[in-house]
Amino acid sequence: MHQLTPYVPGEQPKISNLIKLNTNENPFGPSPKVLNAIEIETGNSLRLYSDPTSERLVKSIARYYQLKPQQIFVGNGSDEVLAHTFQALFQHGKPLLFPDITYSFYPVYCKLYGIEAETIPLNENFEIDVNHYNRPNGGIIFPNPNAPTGHGLELDAIEALLKNNPDSVVVIDEAYIDFGGTSAVVLIEHYPNLLVIQTLSKSRSLAGLRVGFAMGNAELIKGLTRVKDSFNSYPLDTIAISGACAAIEDKTHFEYTRKQIITSREQLAAQLKALGFNIIPSQANFLFITHPQHDAAGLAGHLRVRNIIVRYFNKPRIDQYLRITIGTADECKALVTALQDIVNE
Amino acid sequence: MHQLTPYVPGEQPKISNLIKLNTNENPFGPSPKVLNAIEIETGNSLRLYSDPTSERLVKSIARYYQLKPQQIFVGNGSDEVLAHTFQALFQHGKPLLFPDITYSFYPVYCKLYGIEAETIPLNENFEIDVNHYNRPNGGIIFPNPNAPTGHGLELDAIEALLKNNPDSVVVIDEAYIDFGGTSAVVLIEHYPNLLVIQTLSKSRSLAGLRVGFAMGNAELIKGLTRVKDSFNSYPLDTIAISGACAAIEDKTHFEYTRKQIITSREQLAAQLKALGFNIIPSQANFLFITHPQHDAAGLAGHLRVRNIIVRYFNKPRIDQYLRITIGTADECKALVTALQDIVNE
Repeated sequence: MHQLTPYVPGEQPKISNLIKLNTNENPFGPSPKVLNAIEIETGNSLRLYSDPTSERLVKSIARYYQLKPQQIFVGNGSDEVLAHTFQALFQHGKPLLFPDITYSFYPVYCKLYGIEAETIPLNENFEIDVNHYNRPNGGIIFPNPNAPTGHGLELDAIEALLKNNPDSVVVIDEAYIDFGGTSAVVLIEHYPNLLVIQTLSKSRSLAGLRVGFAMGNAELIKGLTRVKDSFNSYPLDTIAISGACAAIEDKTHFEYTRKQIITSREQLAAQLKALGFNIIPSQANFLFITHPQHDAAGLAGHLRVRNIIVRYFNKPRIDQYLRITIGTADECKALVTALQDIVNE
Repeated sequence: MHQLTPYVPGEQPKISNLIKLNTNENPFGPSPKVLNAIEIETGNSLRLYSDPTSERLVKSIARYYQLKPQQIFVGNGSDEVLAHTFQALFQHGKPLLFPDITYSFYPVYCKLYGIEAETIPLNENFEIDVNHYNRPNGGIIFPNPNAPTGHGLELDAIEALLKNNPDSVVVIDEAYIDFGGTSAVVLIEHYPNLLVIQTLSKSRSLAGLRVGFAMGNAELIKGLTRVKDSFNSYPLDTIAISGACAAIEDKTHFEYTRKQIITSREQLAAQLKALGFNIIPSQANFLFITHPQHDAAGLAGHLRVRNIIVRYFNKPRIDQYLRITIGTADECKALVTALQDIVNE
């Protein structure tokens, strides 16, 4: 295990008055109904084990997406769901395919479970081209919209990928889907090789509650459950189950906040464009931006001095980009003002 | 992964008016300070990721046990801590040693991670004899007190085991230690090969909050952290971290409830002895009992009809035993009355 290179999450600094736009958290709080559900749950019941099957939550998600409970798997954040997916569903002996620029936890899981990886370069516009995935593989995974680019794929491209790879599990990691993408959930009934993973950390404002889930054919879900039941009987605590149910069920809060974020994103994109930034069209709650005259690491440093943190990846192809979370209207404004100062200095 | 035989946790039935003595939960609720801490935490902060290092909780545990933070690892229940321990610390290619009668999740982890297992029979009194562990191994693990027997080992026996196996990691799973055993924590500074695992599910009444931890040499903790950071950056949610800190810090509630349980256990043991049961002396919050004239599965069935559930294991050597959690005074009384009826029928 000494050869493992762990995933490094975005910084969670313990500084007040910070404008934190580095880990794609939601600027709005969770639904008040979540807080109410947690309050009700926090009683004597904590002495008892939580439901090992998280039945209430599974049913809640199934109702929301019009699926059967046997098509739903829940876990302690979508990272845990992803870890079990890598161990349970990707074939060993054949390479797993994913983009060269994507969620950087994927290669870490490959190392953890001894899975061979083959990265497929994004095209010159930083887009996934599904035609590049027609090669022998033991599975395919990418986020849609992709991270950290924010670029979204159309459903027909995903469907083509599923048709061309009938013997592989294709995982669409939809952490950011609610900010403008089209979910592949509707393809589940036609493609038994499709697994869709979502999280409550972004569009449901519950990064701190650690709940994620997967949806797919009942056979895939059985495979995940077999690994989960060999790892931890009770991955979700009682409070997380209750809070998550309330979050899934409060459609009003969800719709209101996600629309606000989409509006802010488009406004911010226009303002940054006016400052000379190039921006990849985003379907996520972040923007991936670059400036032809200003070094990205330098910009991040200048923002940091002004108490604004954004995400910078010192990696090939993207070392001149910054990933900026869509914050509140005030946070967006502060960001634009700061970048204006820096760029015009 | 199709060959996995998952662990089967004790039943969590959704029936009211049940006397539930089957999964060693605490009859008392958690500290009121835990509920208060959770209430305070349940605010806007849930939109942010929880602290990936659970620093507050690590420091809380370090203070409690007078260890350094680098000697503490926390996880989503002690089952997750155990899973990471199996993957990170047991050497492959050599068998892991554990008792034939013990926590039945151990062989499941071995299968999950491809670790060879060798079971060492308990002696005729259902006790662990550490002299039987002097053979080539890639690690040793057992609970102290052992489950489901409740039998506790003295510290000098554990120290002998550590001395005889300096090249193996020896894991003492202390889920039930606070009900009368002597923790091996004091040996950590002398034995770099010792890992002690504890949980908040039993003596802290927080089975529903899912928090467990490991203590040992900083190098062992580093190994666990490397696997954890390759699996899930944020295994503990914000609420679990806060609640767990409050539970560790409220010594008054802890001392009061654990002493009540010890008193109830001794009283219950005497009453069951009077009914003709043989009882293994227990240092845990359960009793492991057998009756020379009554079949154990039959007794469990009769209790079930009376709305009392206890744990029965249909396994070699222990298929005439029942494991009974120490409940409230009223639950203990109802159990004794029911067994009296059944035995005298």
